[in-house]
Amino acid sequence: FQSKLPALGTSIFTQMSALANQHQAINLSQGFPEFDTPEFLKNQVALYIERGLNQYSPSSGIASLQQQIAALIARKYRTQLNGEQTITVTSGATEALFVAIQTLVRPGDEVIIFDPAYDSYQPAIELAGGTCKHIHLTAPDYAIDWQVVEAAVNDKTRAIIINTPHNPTGKVLKPHDITALTGLIEKHDLYLISDEVYEHITFDGVTHLSALMYDALFKRAFVVSSFGKTFHCTGWKMGYCVAPPQFTAEFRKLHQYVTFSSFTPAQHGLAAMLEQQPEHVEQLAGFYQQKRDVLVAALSASRFKLLASEGTYFLLLDYSDISDLNDVDFCHWLAQKVGVAAIPLSVFYKAKSTDKVIRLCFAKNDETLIAAAEKLCQL
Amino acid sequence: FQSKLPALGTSIFTQMSALANQHQAINLSQGFPEFDTPEFLKNQVALYIERGLNQYSPSSGIASLQQQIAALIARKYRTQLNGEQTITVTSGATEALFVAIQTLVRPGDEVIIFDPAYDSYQPAIELAGGTCKHIHLTAPDYAIDWQVVEAAVNDKTRAIIINTPHNPTGKVLKPHDITALTGLIEKHDLYLISDEVYEHITFDGVTHLSALMYDALFKRAFVVSSFGKTFHCTGWKMGYCVAPPQFTAEFRKLHQYVTFSSFTPAQHGLAAMLEQQPEHVEQLAGFYQQKRDVLVAALSASRFKLLASEGTYFLLLDYSDISDLNDVDFCHWLAQKVGVAAIPLSVFYKAKSTDKVIRLCFAKNDETLIAAAEKLCQL
Ligand SMILES: CSCCC(=O)C(=O)O
Ligand SMILES: CSCCC(=O)C(=O)O
Repeated sequence: FQSKLPALGTSIFTQMSALANQHQAINLSQGFPEFDTPEFLKNQVALYIERGLNQYSPSSGIASLQQQIAALIARKYRTQLNGEQTITVTSGATEALFVAIQTLVRPGDEVIIFDPAYDSYQPAIELAGGTCKHIHLTAPDYAIDWQVVEAAVNDKTRAIIINTPHNPTGKVLKPHDITALTGLIEKHDLYLISDEVYEHITFDGVTHLSALMYDALFKRAFVVSSFGKTFHCTGWKMGYCVAPPQFTAEFRKLHQYVTFSSFTPAQHGLAAMLEQQPEHVEQLAGFYQQKRDVLVAALSASRFKLLASEGTYFLLLDYSDISDLNDVDFCHWLAQKVGVAAIPLSVFYKAKSTDKVIRLCFAKNDETLIAAAEKLCQL
Repeated sequence: FQSKLPALGTSIFTQMSALANQHQAINLSQGFPEFDTPEFLKNQVALYIERGLNQYSPSSGIASLQQQIAALIARKYRTQLNGEQTITVTSGATEALFVAIQTLVRPGDEVIIFDPAYDSYQPAIELAGGTCKHIHLTAPDYAIDWQVVEAAVNDKTRAIIINTPHNPTGKVLKPHDITALTGLIEKHDLYLISDEVYEHITFDGVTHLSALMYDALFKRAFVVSSFGKTFHCTGWKMGYCVAPPQFTAEFRKLHQYVTFSSFTPAQHGLAAMLEQQPEHVEQLAGFYQQKRDVLVAALSASRFKLLASEGTYFLLLDYSDISDLNDVDFCHWLAQKVGVAAIPLSVFYKAKSTDKVIRLCFAKNDETLIAAAEKLCQL
């Protein structure tokens, strides 16, 4: 039968991880940590499994986890929320993004997304019958010209998706971006989907500006976050969506028919972790800044030009002094001949991108980062 | 903003479980076991968490779990499948149903469903832009008149959803149903979504006839199953979809943007469980038949008329000799005044149903079943 997503194949992350395995390349492609989930959290989840908390949770998530998320938001963003009415636990941020998009987007709607864009936005929008209006950002700054964004708004524009800290570029939105975004949303009555899955990972004193901090934004927003990124457990597929009560009610109607609920013992474990070891979240930025610095230092002798990473666990490299290959071919060559797997940046663009830029994931042990950098320094 | 699912509120299962908690009623409403997941399986999952298998699995599921599912299908249904190409692990059967429906149904398509129907089919079909053609089945037999089904087929009919063993009625499709279904599918080039989440729970020698057993069906089918029902772990949200390779490829395109993948350590644990304790699955029907028999015996002195349950962990009761209330009011009264929570059957119908029938879940300890029956025998 006819494909619902004819243009799509297997996701680039799946492809590159497979290629890395096939060639025993050091895998800095798909974004996942090489180090393990904190012992306390693992022990808690194992304990709740053993204790028998293995049946359905409420569809919106267990109350204690909603409360702990609300407490974290209050500590970090000074925003007081009623978690029961605004927070829905989901099977990963991917589900949260998917459900938020299905909740908002109607056939014929347009949604503004910024390229390079995470790969799940466009298919989710198209499945809802919407279309994407792509705003093309370019290396090395990936700065947003908000007048260009405003020019892209029309009667059909329903929502804007932002992602800060930004995957794949590592850029973080600044106060002037927030001001411009707020103006646009208010003027044109738009909705906002704010993908903040790397919210706790920013460097060099750069502050993450969450949509949760601004009334004018949050009252129109679905804010998505991820436990996988924060607690080194990407394979648990645990995330959440924060939205005003009325939006949350609609979000939950869909969520209950998409997955209904998420792994119950992990919800209990995460609630205990957030309550009893709040320092993990506070120390995460420092932890990843050290990783970034190890990789940057180890690559300083290479012929790559390093772009600035202000957040996330990704670093972009410009290889234009090294090769004339396009970035997809360059990444295949890197994995096969050099033994390092990376992600080509063009796959995050709708329009053709001829930038010679690749993405490395530095959520790896220092030895892995150094071993990869040694190979890359040979080029 | 306007609701995508305006007619819908919170699912009946969520509502009734909340009412049960509020009134400390014995909760025989939402379908979930009172007993725990097998020790071996719990230990395995806890072990894989401790060992650090906590990052993304492949989006389609880990290979060893696909192989163990294929081995189970080969043992039980004598069907040989290449699991890598046909089996996709999902975040519960709910996600599998949702994704199968999104993969198949296009705007304007009609899908035939049998009422009483599981509550997730219709919203999933409507979100895809399709509409449901409801075939109304009635107590006490809920028999399908296949001529009525054929009369409901038209140019827009895309698919039929069957559910066997059937929630909420406990009925199991018979050979003559399969013959009629196959004829219909072949004649009108329809697709089949076969919800078989209770596949291992049939009683009194009744055989579950899976779409996997019939080439003519399987070549047009998405077959959905659930680990939660089979291993008493509904809160883990683990299920899968089996479909021919070409359908599976399309299913996976969507799945990767709905949840991407499912709880990795549970996949490893389930693979170990299927391999090392195959007797659990084999003994499940006997285990639940004993439960059903305990409840049926304990209710024999009541004024309810008991309908026959051939499979699932549900039993239907006709209360027409006891009350004139409609079934929703009767269930509220039961939870509040009698202390037993049940599900009214009318919520599974699109058309108004005046049948006086409620559903009890017997996935409970014997004492719980007997205590509930004692209360019900007072009426
Ligand atoms: C869900 S696999 C992709 C992981 C990720 O977020 C990335 O590599 O960008
Ligand atoms: C996902 S909650 C509903 C559980 C269930 O399958 C039922 O009670 O019918």
